[in-house]
Amino acid sequence: MSKLAPLVQQLIEALRVLPGVGPKSAQRMAFNLLERNREGGERLGAALTLAMDKVGHCQCCRTFCETDICALCADPLRQQAGTLCVVGSASDQLAIEHTGQFSGLYFVLMGYISPLDGIGPAELGLDRLDKQLAKGHISEVILATNPTVEGDATAFYLAELCHKYQIPVTRLAQGVPVGGELEYIDGTTLSHAFSGRKTF
Amino acid sequence: MSKLAPLVQQLIEALRVLPGVGPKSAQRMAFNLLERNREGGERLGAALTLAMDKVGHCQCCRTFCETDICALCADPLRQQAGTLCVVGSASDQLAIEHTGQFSGLYFVLMGYISPLDGIGPAELGLDRLDKQLAKGHISEVILATNPTVEGDATAFYLAELCHKYQIPVTRLAQGVPVGGELEYIDGTTLSHAFSGRKTF
Ligand SMILES: [Zn+2]
Ligand SMILES: [Zn+2]
Repeated sequence: MSKLAPLVQQLIEALRVLPGVGPKSAQRMAFNLLERNREGGERLGAALTLAMDKVGHCQCCRTFCETDICALCADPLRQQAGTLCVVGSASDQLAIEHTGQFSGLYFVLMGYISPLDGIGPAELGLDRLDKQLAKGHISEVILATNPTVEGDATAFYLAELCHKYQIPVTRLAQGVPVGGELEYIDGTTLSHAFSGRKTF
Repeated sequence: MSKLAPLVQQLIEALRVLPGVGPKSAQRMAFNLLERNREGGERLGAALTLAMDKVGHCQCCRTFCETDICALCADPLRQQAGTLCVVGSASDQLAIEHTGQFSGLYFVLMGYISPLDGIGPAELGLDRLDKQLAKGHISEVILATNPTVEGDATAFYLAELCHKYQIPVTRLAQGVPVGGELEYIDGTTLSHAFSGRKTF
């Protein structure tokens, strides 16, 4: 690979950070941008630099956000709904938003409890969720964690937390395929699972 | 999608310039970098910005290069070899370099003759190739164009150019699957096709 110009080589290596991009597709991407879309490549470079530096987490719900509080958490209608949906990732939050079935607040775990990986309640910001539930404004917590071992373990922990404040807890209805990942489920299935949610 | 923070939304849209990246994988890439690899994302942003701005074309062979003349063209051993291999793209050049069978110079067309797309000899820099051949230092031109309609048409044009200066012309041996694209062929097949090249 030493035959390539250093900046081209460096670009190909840098592209490998993208999930699912191997050496061959990184090379294809680099050449494609250099040959056909330098403007798009520049725009992507600028967007990456800006996003990596400026995007943090919402102080309420932990979702990705470049301000202190995200637009959803700041919305009075969302606050008044009194429902809170707990999801594992920003992708899952987006998938639920796209069903159009939910108009309450979210809490985005950004992971699941996984003792082997050193991820416990503190790493998921659950102290903050605890404080929010303690305020008494939430009348239902919907657990929309992945139907996986880690998602289930996290759901059980969250259910305990809700019981402490006597807040009703529901979970997405079965219909979500066991072992599957929420973000890849089609909208209709997810929509049915959402509306058919059961007390947990 | 208005539910996303503007910089995140902007990043997802910008990622769509990459070949083969749809809305779903752009989203996955953006969240993945934000969640797990901000440093890698920053490195990619910087590499893109730099490469799009600084990478041009070698004044001899047209390959991607950030200096006037690329390392291969500047290599005296390559110049002395007296062979010149014409390829359609920088990816094809790299694929041939990887076979280890060739130690001469290249000419990288960066496309093929295609009248319908307004690509003629001038757009492929063939005036420059003409001047190089006129100097009389080249004793064999190897045509390693894609075995496609456009690649064949370009090869015929190039063969005429070589005949003008009475330079022997060869072409990659059959063995390259018809209709296929050079950059995706395995090294062994390409290696055989290269060493078994025939007078054209
Ligand atoms: Zn928020
Ligand atoms: Zn060169």
